[in-house]
Amino acid sequence: VQALVLGEQAGVRSDYPLPAPSRTEALVRVSVAGVCRTDIELSKGYMDFAGVPGHEFVGVVEECVALPGIVGKRVVGEINCPCLDCRLCRAGLTNHCPSRTVLGISGRDGGFAEYVVLPAGNLHEVPDGLSDEEAVFAEPLAAAFRILQQGAVPTDGDVLVMGDGKLGLLAAQVARLVGASVHVVGRHLERAELLRHCSVNFHEAEVTPTHSFDAVVECTGDADALAQALKLCRPGGTVVLKTTTTEPNTLNLTEAVVNEIKLLGSRCGPFAPALRALADGTVRVGGMVEATYDLSDGLAALEHAARSGTLKILIQP
Amino acid sequence: VQALVLGEQAGVRSDYPLPAPSRTEALVRVSVAGVCRTDIELSKGYMDFAGVPGHEFVGVVEECVALPGIVGKRVVGEINCPCLDCRLCRAGLTNHCPSRTVLGISGRDGGFAEYVVLPAGNLHEVPDGLSDEEAVFAEPLAAAFRILQQGAVPTDGDVLVMGDGKLGLLAAQVARLVGASVHVVGRHLERAELLRHCSVNFHEAEVTPTHSFDAVVECTGDADALAQALKLCRPGGTVVLKTTTTEPNTLNLTEAVVNEIKLLGSRCGPFAPALRALADGTVRVGGMVEATYDLSDGLAALEHAARSGTLKILIQP
Repeated sequence: VQALVLGEQAGVRSDYPLPAPSRTEALVRVSVAGVCRTDIELSKGYMDFAGVPGHEFVGVVEECVALPGIVGKRVVGEINCPCLDCRLCRAGLTNHCPSRTVLGISGRDGGFAEYVVLPAGNLHEVPDGLSDEEAVFAEPLAAAFRILQQGAVPTDGDVLVMGDGKLGLLAAQVARLVGASVHVVGRHLERAELLRHCSVNFHEAEVTPTHSFDAVVECTGDADALAQALKLCRPGGTVVLKTTTTEPNTLNLTEAVVNEIKLLGSRCGPFAPALRALADGTVRVGGMVEATYDLSDGLAALEHAARSGTLKILIQP
Repeated sequence: VQALVLGEQAGVRSDYPLPAPSRTEALVRVSVAGVCRTDIELSKGYMDFAGVPGHEFVGVVEECVALPGIVGKRVVGEINCPCLDCRLCRAGLTNHCPSRTVLGISGRDGGFAEYVVLPAGNLHEVPDGLSDEEAVFAEPLAAAFRILQQGAVPTDGDVLVMGDGKLGLLAAQVARLVGASVHVVGRHLERAELLRHCSVNFHEAEVTPTHSFDAVVECTGDADALAQALKLCRPGGTVVLKTTTTEPNTLNLTEAVVNEIKLLGSRCGPFAPALRALADGTVRVGGMVEATYDLSDGLAALEHAARSGTLKILIQP
């Protein structure tokens, strides 16, 4: 089958083996997949990943021994595949299972391919009213909902989202859901239009005053932005860390100590509220797809997605 | 009066003016003062401080218009002097008041002098059973209790205190109070003796396994220790930041994002539980004083305190 492969022989291959699901896994025919910044990092060597990337997908189940009722359904899927048996799994921290595989990121082929395999328990049925192009945002939107799950957004507080990229636009909408007064600082003033439905304040390039936001959500993808986040957060406030980078950066955390700031690492989140918010229209992703590439042009898709300021790039097998 | 002064004409002076308390302040004759690592940093230029350092003291109140009942009492004092009128003060974040002065650190002369002045509301009477040499630990012990006040120590969890300096020894005892299983990693195996009364596990130089501690309290004073703290903390756990440094360091926080670690800045804490714990003997500071200097030898005291591995140095006017 056709697949985009990273590693020693990177490129789109047409002779990639059809993945074979175990009894508890499902074989899913991919309808569309989304390119994430992590895919770009993987293509540069992050995680030493070799195989098929792609962890945002919508598809139709073709085979599932353990859960035959799901065959034929349109699904999205959670990306962490835990052992369910270790100390962390038993404590409910399945997304942190040390022996987990992660779809298209670690130890498991992902969705830039005609077919993908995931444990049946990872799948969520897509509500009928949603298009594939909306449902493919379930995974990044779940990561935005993680911020609420962690209790990092005060309902009556002032929240600043740094970055007007894909995750920033989703995080701003999610923070608004709980009633917070939400500000976004970014470089693309025209993107304020994408947030018009939810009364978010859009700032270009600079925000004042310093030390005033109850929570700052750092979604810039730029490791250097954290120093600025620490300056904008109020004493005793929370800075949510969403940016991962391969390179370390230079930082003095003394300001975090003196101002007793809480820095909160935040990664994958819950799919169910993400799908409900998309179905209800309380979170909107219309206008966030910049281009769709055929899987055979997968490398061009990655290249386009890597350009600074690009919104969502989709890949269709 | 005699005072140790930092700034342009650093040194011990005998002609320093007697501080004049306002109606709401108290004049306190200093009995003994403790040297903190922050004092060493101030002497190197941290905060651009000029004046009398010293924010750990025990003394006797000589004058207080607003609270005459406190005259003649032996006291210790909270170091933050807030405006009580700004947005942060009204929200209860008085220790973070942006226009606060801080005893011996910012905008207010401290306790390495014959006399010190503080708002009457900052003073706490020392219980009779405590010696001056015990009571002088109230301020750093309060900073250790701040960790409990922030809810950072899980009562049934595994806690690692990094550093066996003054703050590390206090933080370990405080973490033990709430029932946590406490480990200390340090360089001075003989200091395990100081923690014998409270069943703390002492490790020299290295701790395993990685990713296993529910909370890691970083008290090394070394900015580079944070990378190690992130490795030792379990996914979803808390790293308490106590170290402040003038120099930035190089750090990659990707591990904190992927493992969803909470980094929690922690500074000044509550005096009342600190004084009660010292009076009850649940926290012990016996053996933690390394030397006592006369105020006239104040510079030698700072020099001694600056040597690596030194426990508490006291200064007596």
